[in-house]
Amino acid sequence: MVEAVRSGPTMAVVARMAGVSVPTVSKVVNGRGGVAAATRDRVAEALRQVGYLREPSTPFDQRGSGRLVDVVMHGLRSSYAANVLGGIEAAARETGLDVVVAASEAEQSHRESPAGGWLDHLIDRGTGGVLLVLVETTSAQHEWLTHFGIPCVVVDPITSPPDGVPTVAASNEKGGYDATRHLLELGHTRIAHLGGSAPKLCARSRLAGYRSALADAGMDVPAGYQPDGNFQEARAQAEMDRLLALPEPPTAVFAASDLMAIGVCRAIRAHGLQVGRDISVVGFDDVEEARVTVPALTTVRQPLVDMGRTGLDLLARSMRGEEVTGHVELRTELVVRESTAAPRQRPVKSTTVVRGGTSIDRRSGTS
Amino acid sequence: MVEAVRSGPTMAVVARMAGVSVPTVSKVVNGRGGVAAATRDRVAEALRQVGYLREPSTPFDQRGSGRLVDVVMHGLRSSYAANVLGGIEAAARETGLDVVVAASEAEQSHRESPAGGWLDHLIDRGTGGVLLVLVETTSAQHEWLTHFGIPCVVVDPITSPPDGVPTVAASNEKGGYDATRHLLELGHTRIAHLGGSAPKLCARSRLAGYRSALADAGMDVPAGYQPDGNFQEARAQAEMDRLLALPEPPTAVFAASDLMAIGVCRAIRAHGLQVGRDISVVGFDDVEEARVTVPALTTVRQPLVDMGRTGLDLLARSMRGEEVTGHVELRTELVVRESTAAPRQRPVKSTTVVRGGTSIDRRSGTS
Repeated sequence: MVEAVRSGPTMAVVARMAGVSVPTVSKVVNGRGGVAAATRDRVAEALRQVGYLREPSTPFDQRGSGRLVDVVMHGLRSSYAANVLGGIEAAARETGLDVVVAASEAEQSHRESPAGGWLDHLIDRGTGGVLLVLVETTSAQHEWLTHFGIPCVVVDPITSPPDGVPTVAASNEKGGYDATRHLLELGHTRIAHLGGSAPKLCARSRLAGYRSALADAGMDVPAGYQPDGNFQEARAQAEMDRLLALPEPPTAVFAASDLMAIGVCRAIRAHGLQVGRDISVVGFDDVEEARVTVPALTTVRQPLVDMGRTGLDLLARSMRGEEVTGHVELRTELVVRESTAAPRQRPVKSTTVVRGGTSIDRRSGTS
Repeated sequence: MVEAVRSGPTMAVVARMAGVSVPTVSKVVNGRGGVAAATRDRVAEALRQVGYLREPSTPFDQRGSGRLVDVVMHGLRSSYAANVLGGIEAAARETGLDVVVAASEAEQSHRESPAGGWLDHLIDRGTGGVLLVLVETTSAQHEWLTHFGIPCVVVDPITSPPDGVPTVAASNEKGGYDATRHLLELGHTRIAHLGGSAPKLCARSRLAGYRSALADAGMDVPAGYQPDGNFQEARAQAEMDRLLALPEPPTAVFAASDLMAIGVCRAIRAHGLQVGRDISVVGFDDVEEARVTVPALTTVRQPLVDMGRTGLDLLARSMRGEEVTGHVELRTELVVRESTAAPRQRPVKSTTVVRGGTSIDRRSGTS
């Protein structure tokens, strides 16, 4: 474990020893990219020689910083964060570890990477390990953690971390499949999916589940039926407005999060329609908001507390020197509440039928 | 700052030096009660002599544990906790402090004191200061923190901490007054208050605000109109069931928290009535749940993020050696949404009026 020997002069000495510039040393220390692997190794070797970088020595058993784990979360103020952190803290307490918590810069800047100077600070203070929750990191940062012998686990990765970094997430694809399957079984055939955010792993998996369920039912995704969102309620409401303006609006929507589903419900009400009776809505997460909105949301429960617990447990094992790799997928569960029901009238494709000489355009099951 | 010199033998030595038993030393170290002040001072002196207890030396400037602040919260999984913690973390980051977070035992045992061994652990590891949020502590624990020179700030105290411990809370009494005043101005005269939990400071202040507003309007609290709760939704629902069964049920309810208000709304719906139209409901907190329930709750906003920020800022000042005492009260704000409206029919006192020879018992404004 590293024990706080950072200063300007040290940086300059290291730069001279490694034959590089001070900014390059800083880049390496901060885990930023743009440094060739060979250069980085040379800098690391110089850091080790001047005592900046020490080999880990049973950090888990140490007093002080070795008993700390650093949790960086994408924001702290959501129900998602509160539940995952609750699980992390409970498991840490049982393991005799203390949890240092930090929000990524996301709340300020909508960036999802740890705040600038974060690695530098960890190395300065010392840490037993790092738990990243819904936080984007660079491979350079992971390489640097490895260099310093700091174990790391990623909960709910936004993008795939490098091989060897253990990850924990919910069964997002299965969850998306179950949500869609539930709507199919109720008799819906016009089912839209409001995606979370296309580049994010969890959003992609939920979308994949939706598509698989429709494919298994022999159905295509109608045009315009899978808009992408940003996991925000307001955007979800706007996307639902657009879905409702389609010539053939959906009779059911699977949204990639509960907050998005709440935005969807808001749009449905604004159109004078009733959630559940007129249009079914399924969310994802099962945070407190899903339970208290009216009608209560049918949703896919992520085991958020368990995800936090499992992440901490893996990290503790890694800190004890066990080999910990691979991906742990925790099971989601469909929770049926009041926001889903059979379509009011068997929806039919838009066809013009002739009845008693009158042409009727039967477009919507709810008309 | 204390630097980790704890062991069984030390305890025994200290016990001999102070002429007390090892359990007594342990009691003092852990800040438990049942030790006379003179005895405690003798034990503290012995601890100081053996080097267990060192005088604080500009802990804030130290590397390592002096830059840590320990936050103990009554549970981490609520929206309340998430918001307060968000404020604490943001302020800590700006101040260059790291936040170690722990839940009190409340989530497991419904006790509201820090987990057993908590002080012992802090002293073992070292800390720059302690921030207690909605956590009950004993005066023995506070005395012990003072002994060790560990600054402490209490956010949302459950009971009054000893003189000299700085506290931060929302303007709970004003909030209760504003909530009730809002209902009076809408024309309600039958206004009940569902209390939080009688022994808790915040609940008492909200109740006091309710009573003041009624008194200022020249009104008494009708019998049975101020049941006490436990800040839980289920209990609130049950209490509301009882209120609705009164001969003269209220036309408006001010609940001491948003979650309680949501329980109240549930009871109202279960009785076939409509929140807002038939019975007005005001909550307290303005957590996310208030905004997403339907109809959206009129509530009293606690500045939760600011409460966290202010608590951390006071603690940081205290850690820098500034004299920080007294109580900071942060302003609440009434947020009017959809759960309140004028009573459907001007409610009248229960009187028997004779009209055209028929005796009519006019009991309820909603009948």
